[in-house]
Amino acid sequence: MRDVAVIGIGCTPFGEKWGSSFRDLFVQAGTMALEDAGVAGEEIGAMYVGNMSAGRFIEQEHVGALIADYAGLATAHIPSTRVEAACASGGLSFRQAFIAVASGLEEIVVAAGVEKMTDVGTGVSVDALAGAADREWEGFVGATFPGLYAMIATDYMNRYPLTREQLAQVAVKNHYNGARNPIAQFSQEITIETVLSSSLVADPLRLFDCSPITDGAAAVVLAPLERAREYTDTPVRVLASAQASDTIALHDRRDISTLDATVAAGKRAFEMAQLSPRDIDLVEVHDCFTIAEICAIEDLGFCRKGEAGRLTEEGVTALGGDLPVNTSGGLKACGHPVGATGIKQVCEVVQQLRGEAGRRQVDGARIGMTHNVGGTGATVAVHILGV
Amino acid sequence: MRDVAVIGIGCTPFGEKWGSSFRDLFVQAGTMALEDAGVAGEEIGAMYVGNMSAGRFIEQEHVGALIADYAGLATAHIPSTRVEAACASGGLSFRQAFIAVASGLEEIVVAAGVEKMTDVGTGVSVDALAGAADREWEGFVGATFPGLYAMIATDYMNRYPLTREQLAQVAVKNHYNGARNPIAQFSQEITIETVLSSSLVADPLRLFDCSPITDGAAAVVLAPLERAREYTDTPVRVLASAQASDTIALHDRRDISTLDATVAAGKRAFEMAQLSPRDIDLVEVHDCFTIAEICAIEDLGFCRKGEAGRLTEEGVTALGGDLPVNTSGGLKACGHPVGATGIKQVCEVVQQLRGEAGRRQVDGARIGMTHNVGGTGATVAVHILGV
Repeated sequence: MRDVAVIGIGCTPFGEKWGSSFRDLFVQAGTMALEDAGVAGEEIGAMYVGNMSAGRFIEQEHVGALIADYAGLATAHIPSTRVEAACASGGLSFRQAFIAVASGLEEIVVAAGVEKMTDVGTGVSVDALAGAADREWEGFVGATFPGLYAMIATDYMNRYPLTREQLAQVAVKNHYNGARNPIAQFSQEITIETVLSSSLVADPLRLFDCSPITDGAAAVVLAPLERAREYTDTPVRVLASAQASDTIALHDRRDISTLDATVAAGKRAFEMAQLSPRDIDLVEVHDCFTIAEICAIEDLGFCRKGEAGRLTEEGVTALGGDLPVNTSGGLKACGHPVGATGIKQVCEVVQQLRGEAGRRQVDGARIGMTHNVGGTGATVAVHILGV
Repeated sequence: MRDVAVIGIGCTPFGEKWGSSFRDLFVQAGTMALEDAGVAGEEIGAMYVGNMSAGRFIEQEHVGALIADYAGLATAHIPSTRVEAACASGGLSFRQAFIAVASGLEEIVVAAGVEKMTDVGTGVSVDALAGAADREWEGFVGATFPGLYAMIATDYMNRYPLTREQLAQVAVKNHYNGARNPIAQFSQEITIETVLSSSLVADPLRLFDCSPITDGAAAVVLAPLERAREYTDTPVRVLASAQASDTIALHDRRDISTLDATVAAGKRAFEMAQLSPRDIDLVEVHDCFTIAEICAIEDLGFCRKGEAGRLTEEGVTALGGDLPVNTSGGLKACGHPVGATGIKQVCEVVQQLRGEAGRRQVDGARIGMTHNVGGTGATVAVHILGV
């Protein structure tokens, strides 16, 4: 296994992109990533794409071949593979691309993620997303994702010190960051009152506790570290790639307020990178709901169980804090095109480590982490990147 | 990249399995593969599953985590990843598992494939399958898969010598083989007259030119070659793994009667194995329609373009011929649970190379090939296995 670096990144603006199709979005992100890397199409050896549910959202499967085709690479006949693990599809796409390069099998590999969610109505999209949970034991009896995460939040708040205001502060912080990110779906700052007065979705979660339905695509280019400087002056090294699974149904877990797959993937990533949570300068965590960010901070080992609410309130996880979390705005404010999210997290960390994050730059950031979750934690991908 | 071997195989009976769910089918195949390998669950380092469209067929995505869970491996938190490339999903699952072991990242890896297609009506399944083609430029204007392959057949028959009877002989041969395979969906032998008198589906293709809608699952266990004999006396080595893509839409191809992705993947596989078509003792090709087998035999280099019909008529591709093709019965007679097909092909070749194929055994088989196609050839996976 050889060392691997990210040499290029590209991300579309996230939002309701009614003027762009699935393939438009991918081509836009892919082109940006190749231009950023200074890589020509014919140099690409393979592609991976993370996508959750194009089958439901646009009635299209086989999107690996589709994106290779629309990237103009069909005649090169390169391998192009879709990977899917619900909202962790992007993280797994990045991991498979990493393995392809690290193994020595491929040289230049594109890892992409894309989701086009707004071509269907809310009913279909909520039902499609419910396909990330256990359809037979959760979906068919009416459990939606807000409902499942509301159960996590309720259990958590019964057992650990977390106030409703601290939970709201997660959204406030992420909107603050999103307002400083040009690609973010939401560019408005909000207050705790905005969250608390928004409509109830699934008690205790309100509208502003939830990430939105989003269209978007992201792509990154990977190369062997030893060749990275042929393409860029600012290669970002992949220090660790880890993946873990858990029961697909929430009710089968040992403890629904701790995502064991996050714990396992986090430990494996730190071990692979020979680092500890203290070494991380910033982290993009999977805040599909505000409670998910609280759990993630703890389950990754940045603090003990029950402390993340207080740390959030105290500004530790804010820009300028000791551990900036979700500088991109996270899923909450940047948006959550499910298959693209894991790749967008990598784009954000790379921008930060290059010092190119503009008004949301973390000073002196040298090591960053991404944390991408499928469903309620049945799949987790964690990556550590460094310069 | 180190050498990799198949140490265990398992395959459910294929057919309309109304008494078995998606997860039942996977557990059945996975358990057989682990028992065959003599591997305990806790030894498994990672899993891959090929599945085309569980989102449409059973409204379930995230099937990587689902199968790890129902295999009883959730608490081990192993990585489990779904890969999708329409009907080539199984082949890509095998390839990703191969890469994971060959890279040194993992030791024991399960590659599985599963599809549960009969829980929906024919309309939904035909539409779901159309998601393997270009939805915007083919599906939305009414092109179905039989229609697309009928265009290939029409073009082919206009340009090359292929009689309607020779085409029918592909189905006759595959039903003969299927009748000797205990897991096959169809166990009846048929005649050329059966094919020619069956109802017209898309001219010139008739019902018996088409593979069926099928439920089924298959799984194989991979290990480093150097450790394979700890588990089995009959390891089967993976001599080559190759994958290629092409335009997703048929009308964008240079030549619709030649699948360039098959040509590319075949060449890459022979190069990797340092072998030529003459070295192959048997091959499982992707005969979703009879014309697809004709094209595959030629595009893989076993004969020149236009010769496969005559070779089929002369019995060269039959059991006992010089190049037995689809000894399992192929997609046509064994059945075609799309995500499982690529893994079933590997199971068949392994059984043959072990000398365990019973009444369909190819005498002295030492090297076999699998050829798995997504859509009309936008993704192709080719593997060569040997003892």
